[in-house]
Amino acid sequence: MQDIPTYADVEAAAERLQGHAHRTPVMRSRTADALLGAQLFFKAENFQRMGAFKFRGAFNALSRFTPEQRKRGVITFSSGNHAQATALAARILEIPALIVMPEDAPAAKAAATRGYGAEVVTYNRYEANREELTSRLAAERGMTLIPPYDHADIIAGQGTAAKELFEEAGELDYFFVCLGGGGLLSGCALAARALAPNCKIYGVEPEAGDDGRQSLLKGERVKIEVPRTIADGAQTQELGELTFAILQRDVTAVVTATDAQLVEAMRFYAERMKMVVEPTGCLSFAGARHGGIDVRGARVGILISGGNVDLTRFAELVAGSSARLS
Amino acid sequence: MQDIPTYADVEAAAERLQGHAHRTPVMRSRTADALLGAQLFFKAENFQRMGAFKFRGAFNALSRFTPEQRKRGVITFSSGNHAQATALAARILEIPALIVMPEDAPAAKAAATRGYGAEVVTYNRYEANREELTSRLAAERGMTLIPPYDHADIIAGQGTAAKELFEEAGELDYFFVCLGGGGLLSGCALAARALAPNCKIYGVEPEAGDDGRQSLLKGERVKIEVPRTIADGAQTQELGELTFAILQRDVTAVVTATDAQLVEAMRFYAERMKMVVEPTGCLSFAGARHGGIDVRGARVGILISGGNVDLTRFAELVAGSSARLS
Repeated sequence: MQDIPTYADVEAAAERLQGHAHRTPVMRSRTADALLGAQLFFKAENFQRMGAFKFRGAFNALSRFTPEQRKRGVITFSSGNHAQATALAARILEIPALIVMPEDAPAAKAAATRGYGAEVVTYNRYEANREELTSRLAAERGMTLIPPYDHADIIAGQGTAAKELFEEAGELDYFFVCLGGGGLLSGCALAARALAPNCKIYGVEPEAGDDGRQSLLKGERVKIEVPRTIADGAQTQELGELTFAILQRDVTAVVTATDAQLVEAMRFYAERMKMVVEPTGCLSFAGARHGGIDVRGARVGILISGGNVDLTRFAELVAGSSARLS
Repeated sequence: MQDIPTYADVEAAAERLQGHAHRTPVMRSRTADALLGAQLFFKAENFQRMGAFKFRGAFNALSRFTPEQRKRGVITFSSGNHAQATALAARILEIPALIVMPEDAPAAKAAATRGYGAEVVTYNRYEANREELTSRLAAERGMTLIPPYDHADIIAGQGTAAKELFEEAGELDYFFVCLGGGGLLSGCALAARALAPNCKIYGVEPEAGDDGRQSLLKGERVKIEVPRTIADGAQTQELGELTFAILQRDVTAVVTATDAQLVEAMRFYAERMKMVVEPTGCLSFAGARHGGIDVRGARVGILISGGNVDLTRFAELVAGSSARLS
């Protein structure tokens, strides 16, 4: 296992991101405050470049490449926001990028990734082993693999979102973060532990895919089947080694949210806060609202991870009558 | 006619609004910049309290009431954002509020206005004269009438949005503002003239309701039929006396946008900037993009007026295939 990153790594990442990542706004809503009887501070990473926090980690990791690594390029596997984040960071830093995607990934995602100038290789997810394919391509081309979450530079980069939140909002009593593979949550936990030692930190994952909760309860990583949930960014089967180690040490607990609760949060964001948030990005608020934690009277941080949702799908989900859950 | 307000009135309004109105963020988008070949600064009043800039003017006007006026209350006519803004400002300042609305106004708007504690009186718009009814009720109850736009305190309050934008973005070469009755545009023009004397200021109104453009060309106020447009906040028939006087003096020109261009802007905001913007709020960006002004290489301010659109309607408009224009 790599060494666990520290808050000093988050600070170094913040310097590298200066002028490249947006310092996203912290949004407030009196309606949300009234709903939970608390003061809520929403860190809106849906307004980040390419629409999600993932740009932070990818840019941080790629900006640490040696000249030799830069020349040979980066490779990763992802059908989601990490693919676009890696492609965009690579374009900015003039590094060749190769993204391995399942051939049934949404055409728009592959197109967006190619639009940033990355090469896309597809595979049949029922026949090919993604890790093997990626490793083989990495070896053949001498490319550096930057995985979506289980990497110290990725974790440190994602933690800069929480660093900005605490700098702007001050002390918080509770902090809810969306949880998939754990890159965002572990990075944010590093920042929270340093800047607000008494803050209780919760990961929120889909009820249908509660491998994080199971893992913390069991004391070892639990692997599950690909969960059926509208939170496509949290359809991970297993935490990473590094992210699990940080979660075990720094996170208070993991709570879950149902798809219906995610849709409720999406509607709230659109109707009351005028924001487009993707289903996965709704986990944190849904967990704060329904996760069984009594936050009344407290100062609460809510990390919104991203806003990349197909507009037709978004319309279906928020329009109500025609909402179709997967 | 009342005296024309000055930038000093905008500054005084800003002090009154301190701690009550949100200082809304200025959003950036590299995609939008690339689209227009310019640097765009979006002042996002869709994130203002109650979802639109209207809170600024209403709160400013009501906070200037004498103790006697406060006791007797405020009355206004509006089926839109000014109704909710007046109701909310009145609740905060503990002033009774009476809102005169057409009986066929959307139920949600009347409910939201009542939700803020205001009394709502409805009238049949084909039988009753709104102004007469409002004047009669004002006289009977001794209430002070605060109209939606043609009032010095309303204009000064709306101008605080532009004051914040120029303070944050610095000098701008062009500034596009949504135009209905002219309260927002005239207030913003006062601020722009003081803070950026060389900035060209454009009002943007619906193509189907170009009374503002006609009025500036003719040199007198032109009254039109209620225009058919999805920009319901700009379905005004005529500028105000005060707002017209300021527009004549300070505004470079008025350009127009079609409903299809407004929908295109709504989609862009949702898809690329993750924001919900109401059709009227899309006027400024649509005008900057399609209004025939060459903004390439320039620094451009875009004032987004609000985000209050029914979610079902929003979904219809942005989902594309099912978009139904009025």
